[in-house]
Amino acid sequence: MGNHWFVGVDIGGTTIKMAFIDTYGEIKQKWEIPTNCEHEGKQITTDISKSIFGKLDELDEPKEKLAGIGVGAPGFINMETGLIYRAVNIGWTNFPLKDRLEVETGLPVVVDNDANLAALGEMWRGAGDGSKNLLAVTLGTGVGGGLIANGNILHGVNGMAGEIGHITSMATGGAHCNCGKSGCLETIASATGIARLATEAVEKNNDSVLADVFDREGKLTAKDVFDAAKNDDRLALNVIDEMSFHLGIAIANLAIATNPEKIVLGGGVSKAGELLLRYVRKHFEAYALPRVAEGAEITIATLGNDAGVIGGVWLIKQKVDNAKSL
Amino acid sequence: MGNHWFVGVDIGGTTIKMAFIDTYGEIKQKWEIPTNCEHEGKQITTDISKSIFGKLDELDEPKEKLAGIGVGAPGFINMETGLIYRAVNIGWTNFPLKDRLEVETGLPVVVDNDANLAALGEMWRGAGDGSKNLLAVTLGTGVGGGLIANGNILHGVNGMAGEIGHITSMATGGAHCNCGKSGCLETIASATGIARLATEAVEKNNDSVLADVFDREGKLTAKDVFDAAKNDDRLALNVIDEMSFHLGIAIANLAIATNPEKIVLGGGVSKAGELLLRYVRKHFEAYALPRVAEGAEITIATLGNDAGVIGGVWLIKQKVDNAKSL
Repeated sequence: MGNHWFVGVDIGGTTIKMAFIDTYGEIKQKWEIPTNCEHEGKQITTDISKSIFGKLDELDEPKEKLAGIGVGAPGFINMETGLIYRAVNIGWTNFPLKDRLEVETGLPVVVDNDANLAALGEMWRGAGDGSKNLLAVTLGTGVGGGLIANGNILHGVNGMAGEIGHITSMATGGAHCNCGKSGCLETIASATGIARLATEAVEKNNDSVLADVFDREGKLTAKDVFDAAKNDDRLALNVIDEMSFHLGIAIANLAIATNPEKIVLGGGVSKAGELLLRYVRKHFEAYALPRVAEGAEITIATLGNDAGVIGGVWLIKQKVDNAKSL
Repeated sequence: MGNHWFVGVDIGGTTIKMAFIDTYGEIKQKWEIPTNCEHEGKQITTDISKSIFGKLDELDEPKEKLAGIGVGAPGFINMETGLIYRAVNIGWTNFPLKDRLEVETGLPVVVDNDANLAALGEMWRGAGDGSKNLLAVTLGTGVGGGLIANGNILHGVNGMAGEIGHITSMATGGAHCNCGKSGCLETIASATGIARLATEAVEKNNDSVLADVFDREGKLTAKDVFDAAKNDDRLALNVIDEMSFHLGIAIANLAIATNPEKIVLGGGVSKAGELLLRYVRKHFEAYALPRVAEGAEITIATLGNDAGVIGGVWLIKQKVDNAKSL
């Protein structure tokens, strides 16, 4: 088994990331293909299969080199059957992703939610640093999450565990969320949320470089806010403080419930790095129990876009190893 | 093994509850002894040991009848070593509870936090009804909790998981909590919290039967509030609505993170039964994601004071069964 590779696959709405990864989690080869969402995404498993074996030919390796495939997909997933209930961006409804890929490739396949796989990837080879109790928070267009306890992803009774973007941060008066509720963490701590807070702030107070950016571009992005904050723009810092206040409380409450060793912030917003960490840690420590705060290190994800494929390989490797030991 | 009994022990600040329980979780005999907190609680393991073998003699059963002991204790516990870091009510600091009981009884012992054992007890034989993903919330003098995922208690990195009484319900302006923070769920949803809310309410508005109770008794209890609410006292119903609002949001946020199948409310306050459930469910459903709310049933604990000893036996039974299968 030591010489085998696993395949990590991370299916997104526009591209599918793929990698051959060895048993130590080292990426040997990685590449991307476009996501073909036509015909309700029916072609995707064939695309993946062809691409895997095409790449293998290119590298002059035999099919036997591969021991299994770990796949991350967006949407609601039944872990036992590998069925995707619904992935809106791709067009799948009750799509048998695991079964199809197994038939098309002849390899064992495991499927999990993409945010969960990113958490496993960071646990294995990234900021988790071997910690088996970890909370991963993905701050991107939305806010996602993965909770790992004793080395295993929490799925809950119907695969919804870790949907922490929809934790309520403002019980009344919050912004509308795509999920139908209002005041979700995602409406504040996502890139979209930060841009919204900043836009509202410059409408009230134009004493900020962000007011000029808004006048020029007609909109603001989270990156604009962090760029301005790095130049000590007061309004930008206030926006980051507000966002970090809500994120810090949400993380503190989750930490009180699950007592993680690492809290890993990933996604585009986490590129703000130390500046973000400083604010989030301040609010986290104010609201976590001292013993919980002492046990938990808040840190930035280190694997970037590779977290999903590495996490996928961790999962299929566990499955293949377990099958061998029976 | 089918004929063996296990011993469940639930150590509290004033009494120690004990029971002989069979492999099906049926209580064959239960009794209590006082907790001897003198000399930093050094005598407690001897008291437990003597009481177990005394009771066995009384029942004319041999020592071989017993297969192990599962013990619940308050405070912070290291699950691997069975060491109690600190149990303030009893006087223990770094007390080797597991080792001492094993030496004194010659039986295998497991130790866990009392709230965690209550959760396991409800999972096995109570309101959990066999569900393997369960959130237990104990609404007593304080608010405690236990989180079960895939049939196992979440402990976290240093045994603090499930301390949900210290989730922040009011980020600003909340009441002081014993933990040193302010605005914790425990300051609102415990018996103490309900009494405080009601006392504050009658000070502002004495158009309630609770104002008369307060004048007569000089204080209010959670039971007074629920009794008045059952007679449709508006002020009492408002207090329950306020408490349920904060409890409902906290439970909804935890359910979004962990996706439980059952949410079991126990402790003295849960004796309010259907009235409490109605209010908590209303607020829970307003703040949980629809798919999370559909998956989760909120219900009242059914085992009362027996939950701890039954949960203790579940835990030692797992350990003994696992050891046999190796």
